[in-house]
Amino acid sequence: MRDYPGSVFLADCPARLAIEIIADKWAVVVLFALSREPCRHGELIDLIGGISRKVLTQTLRRLQGYGLVDRHVDAGKVEYALTDLGRTLVRPIAVLTEWAHEHGVAVAGFQESKPD
Amino acid sequence: MRDYPGSVFLADCPARLAIEIIADKWAVVVLFALSREPCRHGELIDLIGGISRKVLTQTLRRLQGYGLVDRHVDAGKVEYALTDLGRTLVRPIAVLTEWAHEHGVAVAGFQESKPD
Repeated sequence: MRDYPGSVFLADCPARLAIEIIADKWAVVVLFALSREPCRHGELIDLIGGISRKVLTQTLRRLQGYGLVDRHVDAGKVEYALTDLGRTLVRPIAVLTEWAHEHGVAVAGFQESKPD
Repeated sequence: MRDYPGSVFLADCPARLAIEIIADKWAVVVLFALSREPCRHGELIDLIGGISRKVLTQTLRRLQGYGLVDRHVDAGKVEYALTDLGRTLVRPIAVLTEWAHEHGVAVAGFQESKPD
């Protein structure tokens, strides 16, 4: 058996942090929306189907808490934008999304084909 | 405002499936272990610190349920291996892990620096 990088086999696998951040139902969607350009709260509501004002506010606060999103006031308008740190998470999310686009049907098809 | 790919803004974002799969505490670790070579149940127990036999069995069943892991018997020995589909998930997990390695300290540092 070859050598393995030890940290991968710890319970506190470093991928856990990234997963914890993006496991939130709306965090991925909001990060994607802000990856194009800074948005106001109302613009995000219009853009994201099915999100309530309250949930959007909570999601933005959570992402601000991780240092991924910045809230700034410009000429009396409140806007939300990705921080430099937030922008670094766009590519990992895109890779996951591409995987699900390419292979989601295969996984769902496999689950349906099971006898139980 | 530019055009956005619509599917990203649906509640059933395709990234959800990938996240659901890898949000499991042990799935990432087991997929990583099997990405090097097929392993027996006992080899995985020795390799992965802190996992119980029962939890490993449950994790392997779950990954088999997604079509990501195969259980096969070779000369009386039961071995687990990634399927072709399972191998496609190794890179997205590696990208997430790299992100957490590079930026986890920054996120943790930001959270600690908050006044609340």
